[in-house]
Amino acid sequence: MMYSDIPAAQTLVLYFESRGVKNIVISPGSRNAPLTISFTKNPFFNCFSVVDERCAAFFAMGMAQHLQEPVAVLCSSGSAMLNFYPAVAEAYYSDIPLIVVSADRPSYRIDIGDGQTIRQENVLEKHIGYSANLKQDVSHATQTISKYGKSLLEDGQEEIQEHNEREITKALAVAFDEKYPVHINIPFEEPLYGRVEEPSVQIQNLEAQAAPDSPMEENWDELSEVWRHSSRKMVLVGVNQPNAIETEVLEILANDPNTVLFTETTSNLHHPDFFESIDSIIAPIEKSEDREELFQKLQPELLVTFGGLIVSKKIKAFLREYKSKQHWHIDTKKANDTFYCLTKHIKTNPNQFFKRMGTNGSGESDFKAFWEHKKDGYEKKRKDYLEEIPFSDFIAFDRIIKNIPKGYQVHLANSSTVRYAQLFAMDRSLQVFCNRGTSGIDGTTSTAVGSSIYSEQPTLLLTGDLSFFYDSNALWNKYIRQDFRIVLINNSGGGIFRILPGKEDTEEFETFFETSHGLSAKHLAEMYGFEHICAKNEAELEDALEGFYSESDKPKILEVATPRVLNNKILLGYFDFIS
Amino acid sequence: MMYSDIPAAQTLVLYFESRGVKNIVISPGSRNAPLTISFTKNPFFNCFSVVDERCAAFFAMGMAQHLQEPVAVLCSSGSAMLNFYPAVAEAYYSDIPLIVVSADRPSYRIDIGDGQTIRQENVLEKHIGYSANLKQDVSHATQTISKYGKSLLEDGQEEIQEHNEREITKALAVAFDEKYPVHINIPFEEPLYGRVEEPSVQIQNLEAQAAPDSPMEENWDELSEVWRHSSRKMVLVGVNQPNAIETEVLEILANDPNTVLFTETTSNLHHPDFFESIDSIIAPIEKSEDREELFQKLQPELLVTFGGLIVSKKIKAFLREYKSKQHWHIDTKKANDTFYCLTKHIKTNPNQFFKRMGTNGSGESDFKAFWEHKKDGYEKKRKDYLEEIPFSDFIAFDRIIKNIPKGYQVHLANSSTVRYAQLFAMDRSLQVFCNRGTSGIDGTTSTAVGSSIYSEQPTLLLTGDLSFFYDSNALWNKYIRQDFRIVLINNSGGGIFRILPGKEDTEEFETFFETSHGLSAKHLAEMYGFEHICAKNEAELEDALEGFYSESDKPKILEVATPRVLNNKILLGYFDFIS
Repeated sequence: MMYSDIPAAQTLVLYFESRGVKNIVISPGSRNAPLTISFTKNPFFNCFSVVDERCAAFFAMGMAQHLQEPVAVLCSSGSAMLNFYPAVAEAYYSDIPLIVVSADRPSYRIDIGDGQTIRQENVLEKHIGYSANLKQDVSHATQTISKYGKSLLEDGQEEIQEHNEREITKALAVAFDEKYPVHINIPFEEPLYGRVEEPSVQIQNLEAQAAPDSPMEENWDELSEVWRHSSRKMVLVGVNQPNAIETEVLEILANDPNTVLFTETTSNLHHPDFFESIDSIIAPIEKSEDREELFQKLQPELLVTFGGLIVSKKIKAFLREYKSKQHWHIDTKKANDTFYCLTKHIKTNPNQFFKRMGTNGSGESDFKAFWEHKKDGYEKKRKDYLEEIPFSDFIAFDRIIKNIPKGYQVHLANSSTVRYAQLFAMDRSLQVFCNRGTSGIDGTTSTAVGSSIYSEQPTLLLTGDLSFFYDSNALWNKYIRQDFRIVLINNSGGGIFRILPGKEDTEEFETFFETSHGLSAKHLAEMYGFEHICAKNEAELEDALEGFYSESDKPKILEVATPRVLNNKILLGYFDFIS
Repeated sequence: MMYSDIPAAQTLVLYFESRGVKNIVISPGSRNAPLTISFTKNPFFNCFSVVDERCAAFFAMGMAQHLQEPVAVLCSSGSAMLNFYPAVAEAYYSDIPLIVVSADRPSYRIDIGDGQTIRQENVLEKHIGYSANLKQDVSHATQTISKYGKSLLEDGQEEIQEHNEREITKALAVAFDEKYPVHINIPFEEPLYGRVEEPSVQIQNLEAQAAPDSPMEENWDELSEVWRHSSRKMVLVGVNQPNAIETEVLEILANDPNTVLFTETTSNLHHPDFFESIDSIIAPIEKSEDREELFQKLQPELLVTFGGLIVSKKIKAFLREYKSKQHWHIDTKKANDTFYCLTKHIKTNPNQFFKRMGTNGSGESDFKAFWEHKKDGYEKKRKDYLEEIPFSDFIAFDRIIKNIPKGYQVHLANSSTVRYAQLFAMDRSLQVFCNRGTSGIDGTTSTAVGSSIYSEQPTLLLTGDLSFFYDSNALWNKYIRQDFRIVLINNSGGGIFRILPGKEDTEEFETFFETSHGLSAKHLAEMYGFEHICAKNEAELEDALEGFYSESDKPKILEVATPRVLNNKILLGYFDFIS
């Protein structure tokens, strides 16, 4: 065991150990040496080295998402931590407790023209649960004070120690209790490499003051009354952890004839009676001559939502136009007014909530039965459609999703990938994730790699070409497991732009929207030690999938080339076909 | 010619055209479509498409640095713009007018659980000259208002138009006049793809109000008096544009026996009488038994600085310990108190300043002569040293720097590269750049590519392996010129960490500080269409340099493998040898 000789570094490390923050992702640098030394020389911690800070932060975030516990990412001073910001914003909106630790130069070195210094304090403040700005220890500052003839410190060491412990405590409490990302900035004076075998500080192990947020007492009888007497209830589930909802609750919901339950692949919720492809229900109505009538028929009296963000744009547009009289969001932490009709934020978890609602009291409506019939219709039509279309993204997604081995952890990239995935049923044993907090393409691969580290099951990343090449440095990571799998749908550009209204077949469109390219993953695979398999048509794809998931010495990338221009026609054709 | 039908988009584009912001780097997206359409369909603008926003921003910044004029970088809503932040911080500290334009969703879509939305307004505020938050046009909001039954707008269209013009005007004024990066955030309501042939708005072409910063009247006689009567003057030049200082001024300074003028490679300032390798002067003193005496001899009475940040840590440490009685910084914009002894910020340009100082009045001292003698000494010893050491970074830098063709634009990566480069004389015809604002490794290649676009001369990027692989997406850029050259010194890790105090030969050190790796640029070269040449020893290096700069169909990478563990011993040995 070894510690930096700097008290603030010891303090941070001792708090992390005491609170059980075990996993530390470290980007290399010199200013963070006191922490790197202390973390890597202490067997309590599992340390990971990732050079590109953008990847490091998404990698840590993926790990935190999988473990459902705080994971720290550590960097040196300067612009390094700004590269963490995309992951921090994702973590902020996805309720993932990423702990950002940035080493800093002492305050008197900021804005005086020293290298690798920026204004680090509070720099993430727009998307962070808490910013803890630690203070520099007196002992290390003494030398500086005498040298520069400046009195740099207002407080004595005791006050500084107390301040630092209090700030660390607050930050950790927010990460653990509120599942927000937090930022701890910690200034270090040179020399940075001193080490001792025993810490010189003894932490007080401060307790975080309990948040004054007393649980709201709901009038459960009243809520249940509304629930039981609503004949058109819609339950819509956003991003949701696998196995979060008890089977008993699933059965209550599935057996309620007055409730239509919409899920997305990211809901990780399965029952034959749930509606798994929202767009396949909504798109035909949009195109129908009876649009108005059908939408009114679908319009809920009571909308109940839980989980994180919703992928389907169509359901959002529908629910904003055909507002529910009541919208309740069930979540212990927060409620978004996504449809501009939120009437109640019920601070409990969905299991408790639905158990308390009881069963319907005012007789059965045909609400669910009517839509179930529609669902059967489009499911049959989808099968027919798949038989008549040529090889394309649509076919590829169908085949790939059908072929994922049971139990896999599946990461979906933004944005085409997650949208296509909504159209096909995922096996209930799969655990599905996607960075829907900010819905960026910027760190999908890194997130998937981070999430795979401690997974009992192997991980598949299903991604598109722009997301994949954007985060190519994710593969520069020596912790990638041999059983890690990537399926890359390469349609040579941002195919999603082709399905947007207003697209056109011009060079400008190809360059500035679609950003067409001719890149292949083959070189990256070779560079980073992946096996690389290619498929350009259906037969090749089926061949390639054979054995793709079997044990191997190396992780693998299956690159599926699909026809750039044809894909969007086939996708839009699908919605016509089922209408 | 074609415009978006959205007034705010038209307004921005018309202002850019009217003020002469010609170059627009665009990262693909849908929310920014109104701007992408308007910029790409107008022949006044030169548009560049770069997918990875981190690279896009550094690319735009490099272009702005070269052109010495504002260049815009444009992205869609969400986490996209957070990827701009590293380049924005660099631009902020390097006085480069990068204009960040972020398309946003309307404010009522923020924090309600919509995809690709973050809190974009003012998000860069810690490192930005101005944040202009535009407002959404009424015409486009009307539809929304009726749909959602919310009154979203406080102002009428006239007020909004005026607000937007005023904000754009302010932002552009800060970019043009103060050379700061600025941020313009612009919310757009759907539909995003509408277009018209003539703009519906007529801009007023508002004038920016002149900054109230009346030029300070200096007492030139008094300053000149001090200057002329100082017998030990040191002039230290930071990052400085090529050809910024007039020959007349160089001669005045070179011929002053009381003045020692220290330059760095990034000073772009040459004269046989200037001191070009600061560390080669300081290091031997640090090691000398007469340290105290020699440093006192070098301690200036008057320190005059101009230009941007200083690379040499040794001169900073020296000047902070042996403070000059007076320190004047010459710059029209700002003055850093880098050495904690700044006495005067003289707001003029260096040419004006030095011409007004006149020549020495109080006789000649031996200040310069004494140090010139030292300089001759280490220059001779460096030659001797080079003859006795084996192949290493040290040899490689010597050979590579000697071989750069005249007139080239040279970009140096952080941090080993720029530090090594300080030890060797650069030909006076070379124009040397390095991102010293934050001194990050994060965007060097992108910056060099951006800077090369409009350069009359070809560009060489001299880089290390961590910087190069960090910014590998920089090569995903279809504007790279055939004559672009990269010399990559690949010592398989962050070699610089080996020369820091406290390093050790353990696995932890190799993993978490040095981050050793076995990567080669060969795969990236193949992927992105570069010719790739390798050199593993001196003979191969000399062979490879033969013809490396000659005309070619493809850009080229010369990868020089140097011995990871030996390099730092040879570097530290150099300072011993010349002592």
